[in-house]
Amino acid sequence: MGVITLTTDLGHRDFYQAALKGSIISQLPDVRLVDITHEIPSFDIQRAAVVLRNAFHYFPKGTVHLIGIDTVFQEGSHYAMMKFDDHFFVGADNGIFSIILGEKPPQELFEIDIMQDLRYLHFPLADILTKAACHIAKGGRLSEIGQPMERPLKKVMVQPLVDNNIIKGHVSYIDSFGNVISNISKELFNDVQKGRSFRLHFKRNETINKLSWHYNEVPEGEKLCLFGISNFLEIAINKGHASRLLGLHQDEIIMIEFLDR
Amino acid sequence: MGVITLTTDLGHRDFYQAALKGSIISQLPDVRLVDITHEIPSFDIQRAAVVLRNAFHYFPKGTVHLIGIDTVFQEGSHYAMMKFDDHFFVGADNGIFSIILGEKPPQELFEIDIMQDLRYLHFPLADILTKAACHIAKGGRLSEIGQPMERPLKKVMVQPLVDNNIIKGHVSYIDSFGNVISNISKELFNDVQKGRSFRLHFKRNETINKLSWHYNEVPEGEKLCLFGISNFLEIAINKGHASRLLGLHQDEIIMIEFLDR
Amino acid sequence: MGVITLTTDLGHRDFYQAALKGSIISQLPDVRLVDITHEIPSFDIQRAAVVLRNAFHYFPKGTVHLIGIDTVFQEGSHYAMMKFDDHFFVGADNGIFSIILGEKPPQELFEIDIMQDLRYLHFPLADILTKAACHIAKGGRLSEIGQPMERPLKKVMVQPLVDNNIIKGHVSYIDSFGNVISNISKELFNDVQKGRSFRLHFKRNETINKLSWHYNEVPEGEKLCLFGISNFLEIAINKGHASRLLGLHQDEIIMIEFLDR
Repeated sequence: MGVITLTTDLGHRDFYQAALKGSIISQLPDVRLVDITHEIPSFDIQRAAVVLRNAFHYFPKGTVHLIGIDTVFQEGSHYAMMKFDDHFFVGADNGIFSIILGEKPPQELFEIDIMQDLRYLHFPLADILTKAACHIAKGGRLSEIGQPMERPLKKVMVQPLVDNNIIKGHVSYIDSFGNVISNISKELFNDVQKGRSFRLHFKRNETINKLSWHYNEVPEGEKLCLFGISNFLEIAINKGHASRLLGLHQDEIIMIEFLDR
Repeated sequence: MGVITLTTDLGHRDFYQAALKGSIISQLPDVRLVDITHEIPSFDIQRAAVVLRNAFHYFPKGTVHLIGIDTVFQEGSHYAMMKFDDHFFVGADNGIFSIILGEKPPQELFEIDIMQDLRYLHFPLADILTKAACHIAKGGRLSEIGQPMERPLKKVMVQPLVDNNIIKGHVSYIDSFGNVISNISKELFNDVQKGRSFRLHFKRNETINKLSWHYNEVPEGEKLCLFGISNFLEIAINKGHASRLLGLHQDEIIMIEFLDR
Repeated sequence: MGVITLTTDLGHRDFYQAALKGSIISQLPDVRLVDITHEIPSFDIQRAAVVLRNAFHYFPKGTVHLIGIDTVFQEGSHYAMMKFDDHFFVGADNGIFSIILGEKPPQELFEIDIMQDLRYLHFPLADILTKAACHIAKGGRLSEIGQPMERPLKKVMVQPLVDNNIIKGHVSYIDSFGNVISNISKELFNDVQKGRSFRLHFKRNETINKLSWHYNEVPEGEKLCLFGISNFLEIAINKGHASRLLGLHQDEIIMIEFLDR
């Protein structure tokens, strides 16, 4: 039984996500469908990429991840299939593949080529992309339904700046608990830190100078920072909504200063 | 493995939709359950009908669509099962069956007759309707658990008015993207148009005089109209929330004027 | 095929609930996963307990109910597994087990003991609790992966006060329809009532003196009280949002006065 996950901005109030599921089940009655989320803000490719990048490796190898963001047909647009980390990704080639990959190369990358006249399709996600997803979930090869692609459309997420003793990053994601997740990875932090102590600066005067392992290591209501589930530096408040309480919002700058001994 | 879909106003915050699923799984451990939506506004039969009518045909023939809207017992109320378009529908006979059917006749229509004393049931959706849905999903016949019904309770959706060169319709649905969907079907439009050009009027001074195939055919932020996934005339803004940006709300009048050559 | 249900405060917008599901499927590819809800307010153990207590008995005996509320590691914290009413419950021993049990004893109660060094786990729910849940769903015994526990951490829900002719309770839950559910059970009501008539008092001057069986027994827009799906005394308005219309909120006091003949 193949597994197909769904990451879309279709929401749960309309008939679109149901139509998508019906279309898949009609083609592959035994598939296991798992919603990653249907609550990506409309057209927010970057948010979708962050969610999917953090979720996909929890699924079994060979899982097909269908991405339903910004899939409407456009003159010159392409639909793509990618193998990466032994998982499969299917969606519009709108930049999301490049964000998922980061600096790494895909194992395979194909343009989907099973479409008649695309121009008259109203719902390519249900009409075309599901066919590719089901083909792969059944064990089919990408090469059977597509043409090799050189590289996906490049969309770059702003990377942290490193300057000697300083890493300058920004808030890239705020989760439902209000935890503030930055774009500074654990690897980058470790590379620059080289064992030194540090001071994390944000807002006008806030600082934190200790890494925690768990939200619970400080008293309730106090701020902390940690590398959490997401592997990126996160600012949180034990049992509190850090974004609201600290006034820290999407895209705000945060800075880590490493202290010479 | 039978498929049962769920369309309810139960939401996801309480225990009701979970109780519903538990009840079904307890009766039919191998069934595939698919949420169409649990986010119909409370008691909104018309919205439920529109969502279901647009979604059901994506599912395999023989799918059972369980409708959990306004199913509380009432003196004189009936519960019904319907076969239509080779799909099955189970719910309270509160008008929703007639909206799903539109002008077409059902293939089969039965009143459910498997109830003891209904008056003491608190949750007919989980206690009675699931039994009918599971019976059908297992391949049972409607006639085995019900009595034939003449016709379902009639509830009419307001239809567009056609007057010579004019179709007067209204906004029947606004989706999560803000797309404004009318009650004017593609068939009606084509019937009246007879190849003529047209002008769509809405709000005080807004007009559109071209049908698009895709949201992307106009520049971002510009308005368009099209027959989209729903098969009804839709007013949209490329990458924008048309309802908010144009001030077009549920039930507002829109008008199509066809121009004589 | 085992059944695992999920009750969490993880929401649907982030990657956490997807990661949880991926983790389970990776361990137990054939499991049936059912969301009870992911929309418990953050850390609200009491709400989670009420939802789960009302939902679990609709599921087949032997179902494993995984509780993902307040599961972050804390020095001295425990993770527990419980058999109760022939169902299984897995979660952090943060008080929720005692609320689910009420006055009743568990059939089995074990502390989970399959952890390496817990301190370095960021996501115990996905990393540890899923292992216990899958072990049980596969038919494994609790004793194989844990040590017997004496009793769960005690957290008490405020109980109604009974004083001769009076039951004083409070609003314990407001559902999505606005129905106001109290902490006064049907059993308690019957015990104290002994056939007498009653007057339910709430807010300053509101009273109801008749029990209904169904919301529909009073005209639309009128208030009523009943023992509904939840088995607790509920104040509702037929087709209306009682909490809003009556101004009745979480934790407000309600009082039943029984009238001597």
